[in-house]
Amino acid sequence: MWAPAAHRVEVESAEHRMPMSPEAGGWWSASLPTRAEGTPYAFVVDGHGPFPDPRSPWQPEGVHGPSRTLPPEPFPWSDQGFQAVPLGAAVIYELHIGTFTEGGTFGSAIPRLDHLVELGVTHVELMPVAHFAGDRGWGYDGVALYAPHAAYGGPEGMKRFVDACHRRGLAVLLDVVYNHLGPEGNYLAHFGPYFTEHYSTPWGAAVNLDGPGSHEVRRFFLDNARMWLRDYHVDGLRVDAIQAFHDRSALHFMEELAEEVHRLGQGLGRHLVIIAESDLNDPRTTLPPEAGGHGVDAQWSDDFHHALHALITGEEEGYYGDFGGMESLARALEEGFVQTGGLSRYRGRSHGRPLAEPRGERLVCFAQNHDQIGNRPGGDRLGHLISRRELKAVLAVTLLGPHIPLLFQGEEWAAGSPFQYFTDLREPGLGRAVAEGRRREFAAFGWDPEEVPDPQDPETHRRSVLDWNEREKEGHREILEWTRVLLRLRNSEPDFRDGEMARVRWSDTNQWLLMARGRFQVGVNLGPGECVVPVPDSAALTPLLVSSGGVRWENGGAFLPPGGVVVFRTG
Amino acid sequence: MWAPAAHRVEVESAEHRMPMSPEAGGWWSASLPTRAEGTPYAFVVDGHGPFPDPRSPWQPEGVHGPSRTLPPEPFPWSDQGFQAVPLGAAVIYELHIGTFTEGGTFGSAIPRLDHLVELGVTHVELMPVAHFAGDRGWGYDGVALYAPHAAYGGPEGMKRFVDACHRRGLAVLLDVVYNHLGPEGNYLAHFGPYFTEHYSTPWGAAVNLDGPGSHEVRRFFLDNARMWLRDYHVDGLRVDAIQAFHDRSALHFMEELAEEVHRLGQGLGRHLVIIAESDLNDPRTTLPPEAGGHGVDAQWSDDFHHALHALITGEEEGYYGDFGGMESLARALEEGFVQTGGLSRYRGRSHGRPLAEPRGERLVCFAQNHDQIGNRPGGDRLGHLISRRELKAVLAVTLLGPHIPLLFQGEEWAAGSPFQYFTDLREPGLGRAVAEGRRREFAAFGWDPEEVPDPQDPETHRRSVLDWNEREKEGHREILEWTRVLLRLRNSEPDFRDGEMARVRWSDTNQWLLMARGRFQVGVNLGPGECVVPVPDSAALTPLLVSSGGVRWENGGAFLPPGGVVVFRTG
Repeated sequence: MWAPAAHRVEVESAEHRMPMSPEAGGWWSASLPTRAEGTPYAFVVDGHGPFPDPRSPWQPEGVHGPSRTLPPEPFPWSDQGFQAVPLGAAVIYELHIGTFTEGGTFGSAIPRLDHLVELGVTHVELMPVAHFAGDRGWGYDGVALYAPHAAYGGPEGMKRFVDACHRRGLAVLLDVVYNHLGPEGNYLAHFGPYFTEHYSTPWGAAVNLDGPGSHEVRRFFLDNARMWLRDYHVDGLRVDAIQAFHDRSALHFMEELAEEVHRLGQGLGRHLVIIAESDLNDPRTTLPPEAGGHGVDAQWSDDFHHALHALITGEEEGYYGDFGGMESLARALEEGFVQTGGLSRYRGRSHGRPLAEPRGERLVCFAQNHDQIGNRPGGDRLGHLISRRELKAVLAVTLLGPHIPLLFQGEEWAAGSPFQYFTDLREPGLGRAVAEGRRREFAAFGWDPEEVPDPQDPETHRRSVLDWNEREKEGHREILEWTRVLLRLRNSEPDFRDGEMARVRWSDTNQWLLMARGRFQVGVNLGPGECVVPVPDSAALTPLLVSSGGVRWENGGAFLPPGGVVVFRTG
Repeated sequence: MWAPAAHRVEVESAEHRMPMSPEAGGWWSASLPTRAEGTPYAFVVDGHGPFPDPRSPWQPEGVHGPSRTLPPEPFPWSDQGFQAVPLGAAVIYELHIGTFTEGGTFGSAIPRLDHLVELGVTHVELMPVAHFAGDRGWGYDGVALYAPHAAYGGPEGMKRFVDACHRRGLAVLLDVVYNHLGPEGNYLAHFGPYFTEHYSTPWGAAVNLDGPGSHEVRRFFLDNARMWLRDYHVDGLRVDAIQAFHDRSALHFMEELAEEVHRLGQGLGRHLVIIAESDLNDPRTTLPPEAGGHGVDAQWSDDFHHALHALITGEEEGYYGDFGGMESLARALEEGFVQTGGLSRYRGRSHGRPLAEPRGERLVCFAQNHDQIGNRPGGDRLGHLISRRELKAVLAVTLLGPHIPLLFQGEEWAAGSPFQYFTDLREPGLGRAVAEGRRREFAAFGWDPEEVPDPQDPETHRRSVLDWNEREKEGHREILEWTRVLLRLRNSEPDFRDGEMARVRWSDTNQWLLMARGRFQVGVNLGPGECVVPVPDSAALTPLLVSSGGVRWENGGAFLPPGGVVVFRTG
């Protein structure tokens, strides 16, 4: 255990306290007896505590309780030889263990994995599972970063889940949050300089990545990444909000993390990937280190979402104000980033930079995700805002686009359940403070604070749980079938997975868009009226795929009703 | 004038106040009558003020007084066709206008320029001249960034100085401070969001380079750079402490600034350069943008200084603790950076990264500079700490090394005057606060606070003024002559300016160092005893240059007394 400024450290186990021995570099060590069920322990630093271990592998009694070593019996993995599909061919499905099923555990999620395989998904992306305070939460306020949440099934449950995914050919990505820790149960500052006041983030003090002691703080996160990939067989990481990393080191933390992930993969003979969530629109994120980049495999690109959402809903509040019109969407499909250095009205400053050589396999795009849904006051999914026909057009552009598509749980059947913001904070006053902060924030944007559900109310969580019976119901089934058909096409035709950006033609007047993907042409009507998409002469007269019976050949083009989609093969 | 949040702006001129008209993007404009001697003016923002113009070209009454437009009569430049020597062949001379001569002005400096030409200097580097509070100061607390200091001679004086340099073939570099403004006379925050509390610097709030409004704040500094290069004919900029720029934009401010400087140079048909002071040891600083770098032409590298200083003085306080021994110096000469990713004891963290392809013309190195001298309590020059013989060895390594050498004013004759920290702050209490802060800082390092001169005392400034009579005196003349000889060799032999790093052999036991520079070998004795440097067989028996009569050929090598230097040509 690392506690560089401590004078005396003790470990407490089974009500017995013993001093730890100082080692080089601020480390402390002690030996504990091994127990078949794991050994409980906690640390007392200069008389303060006991605190759980910052690197605790298991917190069976929650974030405030003692840590516990893992049982010595090794987990019986059955995924030998599993290899993840390469990112360029990936279809990602974002999943929140606590609401994916009624049970809300790793174990209860396993029976639903076959549904994902049939859907055409290749990668499951788990929202953060590191132990956070309470039983219910999105996971972005984790504090025991090495311990899978007990309420989800703990270390054993997670291993069973990953193993079950791998047996079905599904890779697993894990969302990790290294830019801040949650507000409750964060004892790191008692151990060392994990935080710095030199920089601020939306969550307070920044993680110390370049100040005194940062070599060990970085190691704390790097080793955490290694643990998930090596001990939990996870196939890749999705790193939360990298814009909140403040690091002036010559070797930026993101570059070091990407290098660590790739080197580990080489050592293990597995293809391990790292994906960054970034709102920087910075080409360096995914450029290789030889080109001065951070060597991240792919990054989330909100620009596609914002362009599509603003266009289809007409919303123009907040960041949507920088998007809108067909041109934004066309740029996202052709160039990746829409904001490439011009003035952003929302940010009140210049933003972004063009990708010199945009590649689809470096961009993760989506029409919906946990944030875009959950950060609306009522947690409305896109299906609550637009018609089913429009949703089909949105799915076509998203799932046949040049990027790596990502679906959010339930999106495949236009789930009726919202995805609201829920917490289960136990510290007196903290839950109410979060709820009130959230209401204030929305009120500032003109929403009625009374419409914002209370995050602490267990009902808020319950409402967000998927209803699996729904998917066989009228309307929902149609969307599910359409999603399957689109993914079948994507997964069967290499032209959709060649990494080339799309070539796009579009009309602002009639709001159609024609997207070329190799030999294929995807025409969509994103406007409120009918339109004729000028399908090229070389296209076969018989379309490969249409979204509805209303699509027909007319005047040298494809007639599309609102929300209509047509896919042709040319040449 | 830019004041994006203001509701009402007025301009005051000759006791007459008139409203200004709002323009797009938060700008305000008004027309003033032209006067032959320049028109005084100041701004009143929402009833506050009058304040001087943030972009004031002239502050004849100091930083608190009204601004003044420049007289319409154009300056009679006589430097047509002047081109600066390329950086790779440069010898830089750092100069502080206020102490370079008794007069302390641009005008009084001009008669001393011929001395620099005779010495072998190619570039004069001016310490900051932007108007700071009071008459005396180093210049790093400038607040009127567009106005050359009135006490130095103002805009007219500066133009005459640059013109005089160019007529003698001397290029002019200017030190610019864009990472903070001084504590007195900084009215910028009344105009717009020039600062941010999101990041902190050693001087307080950071300059806002990536928050709302930052597009104009960056433009403020970019236009300042353009002004010096275009209107004052300056040949390049030395940008102070770039580690204090906090910018998460996809286009980093340093890259944008470098691009701006180079594009301006192309437009003007002049070779304009940008040099960064950086303690980041980050290769990206000088890598070209195509390689993911910031495209800066060269950077100050303190590692050479620290390695040499720690070796020759035996000091090991503060940052010197990370250096020492012959190996640090050898690494600086061979690889540029000494700290390349290992743990720095001084910083308490990992630091730096290797330069993949180090080049001498990208590194500015020195045995002394304003900071290394002036940030010692008594402002002691190296010549006060070591013997004259040792100083000659230090000069040989510095001036014949692979980097761009920089001399600090008076170093060429081992000036007896110190360079102490002096200020002339007028705001009540501020001067005393600075003086006391300085005493406390040194006391923390174990110095007697009584030994720290009062920065506000005019005597502190006076003591730091060069004594030009001294250079003809015993001892001083010897160093001056030695400096001339070394620079004559460097400037006459292209091998010393080929940009290749040195190949070095050295002995820790006997503390000799043998540095190969193309066909030349430079042997120096940096230890307290005599030594024999193993000059290669191919070296001629007759040395090209020796530092003293004590050097002789012995046992297949060159016998060197302490501080001895010998230069051979091989092949």
